[in-house]
Amino acid sequence: MSAVLPPRARVVEVGPRDGLQNEAGVVSTADKVRYLELLAAAGFTDLEVTSFVSPKAVPQLADAAEVCAAFPERPGLRRIALVPNEKGMERALAAGIRAVAVFTAASESFTRANIRMTIAESLAAFRPVAARAQREGVWLRGYVSTAFGCPYEGAVPPARVVEVAAHLFEMGAAEVSIGDTIGVAVPSQVTEVVGLLAERFPVGRLAMHFHDTRGTALANVMAALGAGVTAFDSAAGGVGGCPYAPGAGGNLATEDLVYLLDGLGVECGVRLGGVLEASRFLAGVLGRALPSKVLAAGGALATRPLP
Amino acid sequence: MSAVLPPRARVVEVGPRDGLQNEAGVVSTADKVRYLELLAAAGFTDLEVTSFVSPKAVPQLADAAEVCAAFPERPGLRRIALVPNEKGMERALAAGIRAVAVFTAASESFTRANIRMTIAESLAAFRPVAARAQREGVWLRGYVSTAFGCPYEGAVPPARVVEVAAHLFEMGAAEVSIGDTIGVAVPSQVTEVVGLLAERFPVGRLAMHFHDTRGTALANVMAALGAGVTAFDSAAGGVGGCPYAPGAGGNLATEDLVYLLDGLGVECGVRLGGVLEASRFLAGVLGRALPSKVLAAGGALATRPLP
Repeated sequence: MSAVLPPRARVVEVGPRDGLQNEAGVVSTADKVRYLELLAAAGFTDLEVTSFVSPKAVPQLADAAEVCAAFPERPGLRRIALVPNEKGMERALAAGIRAVAVFTAASESFTRANIRMTIAESLAAFRPVAARAQREGVWLRGYVSTAFGCPYEGAVPPARVVEVAAHLFEMGAAEVSIGDTIGVAVPSQVTEVVGLLAERFPVGRLAMHFHDTRGTALANVMAALGAGVTAFDSAAGGVGGCPYAPGAGGNLATEDLVYLLDGLGVECGVRLGGVLEASRFLAGVLGRALPSKVLAAGGALATRPLP
Repeated sequence: MSAVLPPRARVVEVGPRDGLQNEAGVVSTADKVRYLELLAAAGFTDLEVTSFVSPKAVPQLADAAEVCAAFPERPGLRRIALVPNEKGMERALAAGIRAVAVFTAASESFTRANIRMTIAESLAAFRPVAARAQREGVWLRGYVSTAFGCPYEGAVPPARVVEVAAHLFEMGAAEVSIGDTIGVAVPSQVTEVVGLLAERFPVGRLAMHFHDTRGTALANVMAALGAGVTAFDSAAGGVGGCPYAPGAGGNLATEDLVYLLDGLGVECGVRLGGVLEASRFLAGVLGRALPSKVLAAGGALATRPLP
C-alpha cells in the first residue's frame, strides 16, 4: 500500500472568513485582528482574512475593510479575501488586498440556495472580477463547493466538478479549491475526483477543502496527498459550516490537519502550538468549545508521570 | 495511489464493554440488554458484550452474568467477553460465553497503571486462561493496547508490539487486536506497525482498535485496509475511553466506521441505520450527546427540498 506522500504541503487557513461568517454573533474587529495576528504568528503563508460580500447578507464580516487596515500586508503572508462580484472586488482592492477568491459550486441547487444564481451566472459574474485581478496582478483563487455531494441534489457527477474548475482556471485562477461542503466524501471519491482533475490541470494548482461532518476529513486528506495534492484548506478550531448547507458541520480543524501532517513528516511550516493558541483565543471570544479533536485532546501526546 | 481495498471487513462492536466500563454512572441490566439487542439487530457478527473483571474494580459491569443470561447465544453472532484471569474465565464459562478476550499492552508503564502488572506478568496470568479456552474450544482474542503511544512513556517501539502479539498468538489467540488506546497514531505509523506484524502473522488474524482522540481514526483505518487488515473494533456512538489513559477520548464510533466502509464499497454487513438506532437509545440512557460525527450529522446524506 502506502502511496508516496509529497514532502511539503500548504495549509490555507480559512477560519477568519469561512469560520466567522457562520457565527451567530458578530466578533469585534479588535478580536478578529488579534485572532489573525495569532494565526500569522503560527506560521501560515495563506490566510483567508475576510469577505467583501454585502454587509447586509453577512453582517459578521461587515468590517472587512477595517480588518484589512488593522492586519496589514507582510512578507511571506498571502492575505486572501473572498469577493462575490465587481463591487466586492473594488472594495477589496481599496483595502489593499492582493489575493482574492471567488466562490461557486458544482451543484445548481446549492448555488441557487447559496448565492441565488445559476452556476453559469456565477461564472459570468466572476469574469470581470478575474479580468480585473489579471490586470492588477492580483492572485486569484476559485472555489468549487459541493464537489462530493449536495444537500439538495445528493450525488454530484465528478465531470461537473471538472467542468466548473475548468471555467475557473480558464479565467485565470492560480488555484482552485475543491470543497466537500457538507462533509460526505470518502477517500475513494477523493481519489476519483482528483484523478479526473489531474488529467486536465496541474495537481499543484488544486487545493482540497474538506469538512469533517462525518469524521472522514483526514482520511480524505490522505487520499488527496496520495494523489499528489499539496494544498489544504482548514479552519483553526474547526469552526465554520455553511448556513445554506444544512448539517455542514465544521471545517476540517487546522490543528487536526497539522497534527496529521506533522506525524506523516509532511512539512507545512505551521506550528501546532501556535494554532492551538489562536483556537483557544477564539473559543474564549465565542464563549464555546470548538470542534477540533486535537484542541480537545490538548495537542500532541505529552507524557505524564505514572499515577 | 489508491491501494487495493479488501472487499469485506468485520466490525467488532466493543461499546457494551469498552464504552460502558468507562461511564461514570451504572447502566441498568435491562438497558444494557436492550442496547445489545439493538446492536444485534443492526447486523453485527461480533459483539463484546461485557467483562468478567472484579465488580469492585469495574462496578459498571458487575452484572456481567445477568447480561449474558438475558442476551443469549444466537446463530451468526459471537458474544465476546473480556476476562482478566482464571477467576474471570470461570465466571464467563459459567455464563455460557464461548469467546473471550484478554487485555495487555505494549507499554510497561501503561500496563502497570491499568492492570497493576508487568507485561510479562499479565501474559503469565493469561496462560491458564488461554489453555482453558483451548481445552473448551473457546475462541480467544488478545488485545495489545498503547501500540502507537503511551500516556506515560510516549513513543512505543513497533518491535515491542510485535513481541507482545507473538506471545498472544503463541498461546492460542485466534485474533489479536492492536490498539491506539490514546488516539495518537497517524497512517504512516499504522502502515509501519501492520507491515511488521504481517511479516510474522497472517494479516487476517489482526484487528485494529483505533480511538479518534485526534481525528485520525478513519485515516488510520484506510492505512490498515490498504495493508490488508479486515477487522476493526469500534463503539456505537463513539463512547469509551480509558480511565488509565488520560485524554483517551472516545473509541472510533461505529457509525463513522460503517459510513466509511459503505462509501468505499467495503462490505461489513452492519446497517448504518441500525447502529444509529442503538446509539440514540444509549444516548438517551446516558443522558448526553455521544461523540460520533455521523450520529451528530444525522447519518448519511439525505437530500432535502430547496429552501
